[in-house]
Amino acid sequence: MSVVVQNIERADQSIIDGLAECGVATVHEAQGRKGLLADYMRPIFKGKMLAASAVTISAPPADNWMVHVAIEQVHAGDILVLAPTSPSNAGYFGDLLATSMQARGGIGLIIDAGVRDTKDLTEMDFPVWSKAIFAQGTVKETLGSVNVPIVCAGELINPGDVIVADDDGVCVVRREEAAEVLQKSRDRMAKEEEKRKRLAAGELGLDIYDMRPRLKEKGLKYV
Amino acid sequence: MSVVVQNIERADQSIIDGLAECGVATVHEAQGRKGLLADYMRPIFKGKMLAASAVTISAPPADNWMVHVAIEQVHAGDILVLAPTSPSNAGYFGDLLATSMQARGGIGLIIDAGVRDTKDLTEMDFPVWSKAIFAQGTVKETLGSVNVPIVCAGELINPGDVIVADDDGVCVVRREEAAEVLQKSRDRMAKEEEKRKRLAAGELGLDIYDMRPRLKEKGLKYV
Amino acid sequence: MSVVVQNIERADQSIIDGLAECGVATVHEAQGRKGLLADYMRPIFKGKMLAASAVTISAPPADNWMVHVAIEQVHAGDILVLAPTSPSNAGYFGDLLATSMQARGGIGLIIDAGVRDTKDLTEMDFPVWSKAIFAQGTVKETLGSVNVPIVCAGELINPGDVIVADDDGVCVVRREEAAEVLQKSRDRMAKEEEKRKRLAAGELGLDIYDMRPRLKEKGLKYV
Amino acid sequence: MSVVVQNIERADQSIIDGLAECGVATVHEAQGRKGLLADYMRPIFKGKMLAASAVTISAPPADNWMVHVAIEQVHAGDILVLAPTSPSNAGYFGDLLATSMQARGGIGLIIDAGVRDTKDLTEMDFPVWSKAIFAQGTVKETLGSVNVPIVCAGELINPGDVIVADDDGVCVVRREEAAEVLQKSRDRMAKEEEKRKRLAAGELGLDIYDMRPRLKEKGLKYV
Amino acid sequence: MSVVVQNIERADQSIIDGLAECGVATVHEAQGRKGLLADYMRPIFKGKMLAASAVTISAPPADNWMVHVAIEQVHAGDILVLAPTSPSNAGYFGDLLATSMQARGGIGLIIDAGVRDTKDLTEMDFPVWSKAIFAQGTVKETLGSVNVPIVCAGELINPGDVIVADDDGVCVVRREEAAEVLQKSRDRMAKEEEKRKRLAAGELGLDIYDMRPRLKEKGLKYV
Amino acid sequence: MSVVVQNIERADQSIIDGLAECGVATVHEAQGRKGLLADYMRPIFKGKMLAASAVTISAPPADNWMVHVAIEQVHAGDILVLAPTSPSNAGYFGDLLATSMQARGGIGLIIDAGVRDTKDLTEMDFPVWSKAIFAQGTVKETLGSVNVPIVCAGELINPGDVIVADDDGVCVVRREEAAEVLQKSRDRMAKEEEKRKRLAAGELGLDIYDMRPRLKEKGLKYV
Repeated sequence: MSVVVQNIERADQSIIDGLAECGVATVHEAQGRKGLLADYMRPIFKGKMLAASAVTISAPPADNWMVHVAIEQVHAGDILVLAPTSPSNAGYFGDLLATSMQARGGIGLIIDAGVRDTKDLTEMDFPVWSKAIFAQGTVKETLGSVNVPIVCAGELINPGDVIVADDDGVCVVRREEAAEVLQKSRDRMAKEEEKRKRLAAGELGLDIYDMRPRLKEKGLKYV
Repeated sequence: MSVVVQNIERADQSIIDGLAECGVATVHEAQGRKGLLADYMRPIFKGKMLAASAVTISAPPADNWMVHVAIEQVHAGDILVLAPTSPSNAGYFGDLLATSMQARGGIGLIIDAGVRDTKDLTEMDFPVWSKAIFAQGTVKETLGSVNVPIVCAGELINPGDVIVADDDGVCVVRREEAAEVLQKSRDRMAKEEEKRKRLAAGELGLDIYDMRPRLKEKGLKYV
Repeated sequence: MSVVVQNIERADQSIIDGLAECGVATVHEAQGRKGLLADYMRPIFKGKMLAASAVTISAPPADNWMVHVAIEQVHAGDILVLAPTSPSNAGYFGDLLATSMQARGGIGLIIDAGVRDTKDLTEMDFPVWSKAIFAQGTVKETLGSVNVPIVCAGELINPGDVIVADDDGVCVVRREEAAEVLQKSRDRMAKEEEKRKRLAAGELGLDIYDMRPRLKEKGLKYV
Repeated sequence: MSVVVQNIERADQSIIDGLAECGVATVHEAQGRKGLLADYMRPIFKGKMLAASAVTISAPPADNWMVHVAIEQVHAGDILVLAPTSPSNAGYFGDLLATSMQARGGIGLIIDAGVRDTKDLTEMDFPVWSKAIFAQGTVKETLGSVNVPIVCAGELINPGDVIVADDDGVCVVRREEAAEVLQKSRDRMAKEEEKRKRLAAGELGLDIYDMRPRLKEKGLKYV
Repeated sequence: MSVVVQNIERADQSIIDGLAECGVATVHEAQGRKGLLADYMRPIFKGKMLAASAVTISAPPADNWMVHVAIEQVHAGDILVLAPTSPSNAGYFGDLLATSMQARGGIGLIIDAGVRDTKDLTEMDFPVWSKAIFAQGTVKETLGSVNVPIVCAGELINPGDVIVADDDGVCVVRREEAAEVLQKSRDRMAKEEEKRKRLAAGELGLDIYDMRPRLKEKGLKYV
Repeated sequence: MSVVVQNIERADQSIIDGLAECGVATVHEAQGRKGLLADYMRPIFKGKMLAASAVTISAPPADNWMVHVAIEQVHAGDILVLAPTSPSNAGYFGDLLATSMQARGGIGLIIDAGVRDTKDLTEMDFPVWSKAIFAQGTVKETLGSVNVPIVCAGELINPGDVIVADDDGVCVVRREEAAEVLQKSRDRMAKEEEKRKRLAAGELGLDIYDMRPRLKEKGLKYV
């Protein structure tokens, strides 16, 4: 059955904004090394760091009808997350849809398929993380669903989950865990800042983390 | 048999120039969603949009002898299109060959194999769309052909066909269809401009394209 | 057995510096078309050309403990080269380790696995050539070795071998052959400069290299 | 947190046995074209058709400790389903673990990673669907979880879901939907049997499914 | 425009039968090392050697409507050859369509996409060479064409061309060249038979083909 | 420089024969989890277990001249191991070369490239582990070397090293370590036999290996 879920819960915007500043690697670690989408999900241009609530799309291969349906469900600050029901690299999304997204406050796209008009999207500063860049046209023939749980690039994503994305790729944070993950991420960043200073001063990780005894115990030989 | 076809027909330069302004996605759609080379064909640097007549090369794997033969056949504004006779990622082309191409007015390379000296090519503003960036050297031992029909990255390309390439990848337009495709591309761009304005103003694709009745008829449920 | 070899021989810095100016394609050709790592080894940002002595790491999959051990062995101007003992795309290395490397004079990383914090690394101007960009965290549980011969991206690399890397990828030069390879690279560059001028003036490779008689003999037909 | 869920619900064995007779393609269609694991999941030998309740394993890359933990949770007729927390092709499972599985009534393995001792497993008639066949050894250093929801080869799998597998690959059926999916699968098989007879007698799908009017309406031309 | 070309020319059946006995490698060599489809086209079961006239299908991704249309065009001894208009691994073809094909005398399928019901197809002795084995269902929404030239797995295939397929993969022979290629293939087989006897008796290829002088001239050193 | 090393040392045949009985997974573990070639190296038919001394070939892409040269260096019981100098899937080897190999006592081929005539090779019971099955023809134009160290599918292989291969893939054992590795492999097999009996009797690995305390200490929770 094809459905559009119209009311989804979102995390607090202040939490989302906080996660955006932490970045993918930190958030991934802070939540226990989980949530990373596959490494083939690459940004069409570099330098963006963002976090946003997921509006999810389950779409047939090479059929972008549901993207139009989904944009109506987008609130300011949201991001679209699309997974095809079978593998596709077709170009579901281009500059017109990005124009529509921006008009409604949407800030990006995560798509386990293709995107096109990437030169325009770059000039529009509309970030996309995708499996492919491919101009292949799509049809509008078969229904899918909007705001249902999907598996995108190997990770389960529920509508309203927080997506964190930067040059390293994409990470999902469960909506209910977002506040806790933000706190842990900030703790981690604070600790890292301290270590960064010591490392920059020439101290070794071997000493900072006291690794030498355990390396010796495991049997590492210096020759 | 290895042949070099010396006289090939080309499309009018004004048509070629027109197609360059339309870009890959528009041209692909305008000609009925055909002509796209595989999505693994990526530019070595971003930001270029071009169209050019194809001088085709069928070359043995890891043997770039025919590139030298082909450059003699290049007219101002042409692009080389190379397909190996069996898969190869070797670096058939580098800065010396690009210098030779530029001296003769050639404006780029499409290669279903590897390219090298990419830092130099970038500084020379010589665009290449390739399957690989790889410095692996090639030999000059076995003949191939120039200006024969080839299959490059999954598409048939005839000598004199028009190649359109940009950040989205590469599309081929049959020489005889180029004028018609240009007209259709321009029509499409005009229509898109109008839609872009409406989308930018916040109208939804659902309404602009009158999708709601058909979605309902197909059974989409809003919950 | 897990070992750390503490004293390795390095090539003269003047030779290393010379190789950096030649670049990957030239060095690869000059040493007889050998030494290239697989073409999936890509830089996280473009524009760098470097050469450095290899400090090698053989590490378990998704375990970056040995990177900490290796950094202690790094001398100013060295580069880390890591090969996992079975395939992995995990993110072994990020901005903290890069900070430590820079504090000790290390100038880069070659890794047949993943790297993370790539936005930070780019801002730090710390170059990495990797198989993947992936934030996946690693553990510190299992020993590996430092400064032993490894196979990285399809090439044998001994500690102290010279790594040359640029936008085209990565090439290894045996330490003992480095001086000779530099001489041959410079010879090649000098010859290329001469050819570049002739090609830029419009001469054809067909004539410069006197290819026409052999093409005819092999049976190439012009039609 | 690493957990082992000891009591999971399973579908009725009669339903599971029924699904085994339907096969992957039929079950996939009957439940609305969903549930297929990625096509890289291939059987190590051909000819098996089975269905079983999933005992799920979330395991670190190249670490098979949790397989031992999971086998204790296996009931007669169950199948293990393992997803690594980051990509791995290591050989988590071989003939000793298969011996243990068979001793406890376990009937197979689905693994989004590698398997080894495949000649022995074939002789033992112990079926495995895997991403890789690879002898690479694993460690026992890091915890994972047993009987938690996992994403395996692109599909969400809950403990107790029914796995259907044959030469076409692997499909998951939600435990709660298993009875309904079995009914629909049997309905489908009955209808297909009827069509098979008509097709075998030379009738065309074009006529059996009354496709000609709609093809004409869509504009198909016969020339 | 979507078309079905109803009357295509075919090569003489005696020629087709002759090519079937030569096999892929011999035919490929005999026609000048051309015509091979990509090596990812693998048989679903081993041991078949066949040749047949191609009935070609250009089909949308994940839409198998045109297969039904094509089967009406199949003559006894023909083979279907399907290329999707953009990449797809969906299962376009299963046991019902194979039943229909066999009822009409069709002998196999070449598909640059997925196939399903492979256990049934194997039991029916209906051979398929495909890019994928995948049960993913398809729709019947969008037109394609039958008996037009297509590019399948990297090779141009015209309707009526002769397809040769065996455990090594798939090769296409132009219809007009089929008689000549058969003659050359038989000549090659005759010569190979003679060489096989000499090699089996222990003579070396080095001597049979008189390679030693040229190896020496090229500079091969024995140490 | 292209060389043929004529006299290489081999391990004792009794050791080689012993390793053949141990199989790839056991030998790989016994020598400390090293020596595995990449998992894309697959047998053209299943069921073989062998060990043999490596006669190595470094060959240009798509050029099989050196195979003829290498066969002269083959002793009874040897196996050819070929690595191309840049990636190739061409079919370097077919039934004629296999006939020659068998005439001289050679027992198989490991090739990081393509093989053809696989139906014939299967009937001849001549085993091959390869990256590809592909009929693409090769040339005989460029020299390579025989019996030099090569990197094949990610592993360094010296001439005379022992190759162990079975359905799991391929493993290399250093010639000098072969006797020790055989002893360790046999020890391992003896221990495994004992464990196999206990596991077959229903004991759990958790108990046999005394894993419960350490799992508890690491924090595993049963719920």
